[in-house]
Amino acid sequence: MPGVSVAALGGGHGLFASLAALRRVVGDLTAVVTVADNGGSSGRLRGEFGVLPPGDLRMALAALCGDDDWGRTWAEVLQHRFAGDGEMRGHVVGNMLIVGLWELLGDHVPALDWVGRLLGAQGRVLPMAVTPMDITADVRLGGPEDGELTHVRGQVEVASTAGRIVNIQLDPPDPDACPEAVATVRAADWVVLGPGSWYTSVIPHLMVPDLRRAIVESTARVVVVLNLADQPGETAGYGPEDHLDALLEHAPDLRIDTVVADEGAVGDSGGVRAWVASHGARLVLADVAVGDGSPRHDPAKLAGVFERLMG
Amino acid sequence: MPGVSVAALGGGHGLFASLAALRRVVGDLTAVVTVADNGGSSGRLRGEFGVLPPGDLRMALAALCGDDDWGRTWAEVLQHRFAGDGEMRGHVVGNMLIVGLWELLGDHVPALDWVGRLLGAQGRVLPMAVTPMDITADVRLGGPEDGELTHVRGQVEVASTAGRIVNIQLDPPDPDACPEAVATVRAADWVVLGPGSWYTSVIPHLMVPDLRRAIVESTARVVVVLNLADQPGETAGYGPEDHLDALLEHAPDLRIDTVVADEGAVGDSGGVRAWVASHGARLVLADVAVGDGSPRHDPAKLAGVFERLMG
Repeated sequence: MPGVSVAALGGGHGLFASLAALRRVVGDLTAVVTVADNGGSSGRLRGEFGVLPPGDLRMALAALCGDDDWGRTWAEVLQHRFAGDGEMRGHVVGNMLIVGLWELLGDHVPALDWVGRLLGAQGRVLPMAVTPMDITADVRLGGPEDGELTHVRGQVEVASTAGRIVNIQLDPPDPDACPEAVATVRAADWVVLGPGSWYTSVIPHLMVPDLRRAIVESTARVVVVLNLADQPGETAGYGPEDHLDALLEHAPDLRIDTVVADEGAVGDSGGVRAWVASHGARLVLADVAVGDGSPRHDPAKLAGVFERLMG
Repeated sequence: MPGVSVAALGGGHGLFASLAALRRVVGDLTAVVTVADNGGSSGRLRGEFGVLPPGDLRMALAALCGDDDWGRTWAEVLQHRFAGDGEMRGHVVGNMLIVGLWELLGDHVPALDWVGRLLGAQGRVLPMAVTPMDITADVRLGGPEDGELTHVRGQVEVASTAGRIVNIQLDPPDPDACPEAVATVRAADWVVLGPGSWYTSVIPHLMVPDLRRAIVESTARVVVVLNLADQPGETAGYGPEDHLDALLEHAPDLRIDTVVADEGAVGDSGGVRAWVASHGARLVLADVAVGDGSPRHDPAKLAGVFERLMG
């Protein structure tokens, strides 16, 4: 589909999965990546240098690496994480390369484009915003609805606090969106949201004012790719329709065109069928999971869905 | 000179200078790099991972980078050193990339070749040995010959102890040479020694048994490029002939074909003229210094000397 332009929004392993699928079928692909991570190598580099956390950006670039020995080798190198028990433990080679480029060039987007060129990337990777930010959340502790409400700060903490996330906020609440990301979304034919950690990788894009406005005002059709399972700490006990509700609770003016769900993951699918019917969306039910029973998308299967949807 | 093969032996800024010159005129160029550094980013990575110290290898690769926007940008990125006051302070991006490649590929030489390909390097970079080592030295403290003799361990310590180095040793004394470096030296038309820190970057190559044997037994002609000044901590008070004597004290069977010296740096040149006469070598006196009075070689001037010598 050489004429189709797609902006894929997310972060982490979820975005890696959607990019690994989209790269197979889309000619003009841009990843727009969350930049709120405060853990691991990214969190340490962010704390030390005040830069955007590079990890999700690096992973998205690796997902788009050239389909040859050159691209795959550099992607592996950039994804390499140091072991041992010294000061480098846990750091990732590509994170250092990206931060070095940022320091050298003084600008995020050209630096990411250089890494993309190194990898022979089949698409572009942009941050959703140009300054680091924190995610905060109201979390209802324990299981039932009447648990105590607490306020949690930090992507790691939000994703790992046992309980049910009620809502998230960004701090600062109005970060400057990446202008190139805004322009890409406005010009895209399709915007893909998810899969991924729902509150810490998917919904944050809807909380960046200029980016949400671009998504809502764009003529692009919005496709939501649902996760294959609920996620402890973020969406424990959520059904498909709860995931969709969460999007609209954070962006009431979001119009969802298509919902992609795995036919094995949605149970009798009554809930999600009712949801799409009442929201004017359409449902694509397909087998998109890997065959081993783990809750991961199969890139080839997901690519087939995108191809039928967007072709 | 497309048909001429040159092996340039050294480390640090001295090797950078000879490579920056040789790359302009030599078609088949290989750097053979000292791997005894125990300071800075290299020393930390060596200590943490037990790998070769990558810094001198990285600098040699940068010296050979492609002469275009691509090569120069990646060389700059790889040479970028982190500032700040956190755990990354002083680390260099390219060092991390090289160590990551070593861990990933499990072999030094292919990893360095990958970095060379990234940079579009105009030549190859090899380590002189395949295991890290330490330099130790007998140093006569203070100025005159009758100062106290002390034994110093570590490249940084050897290079910085105030006094006169009497001799150096390697620990282990018989490190395994890099087989590709040995083969390159044996097949070369020319072997270039220096400029550089005499005892910690130039002489160590002569102390690796298989590499010294290759240098001595090769039909390659040996060119020694003298430094432009003596170096406090290593060669304070040395004249040109003292530098040459130091080489032969560590490798008595070394046959020096040509000595390149800066005409402004050798004084009346009587000492070095007498030395080459008595050792069957020839002397090339030329203006090879940068114009600002600092003791650094000008790549273009030095390239001219190499071209006349080897062409």
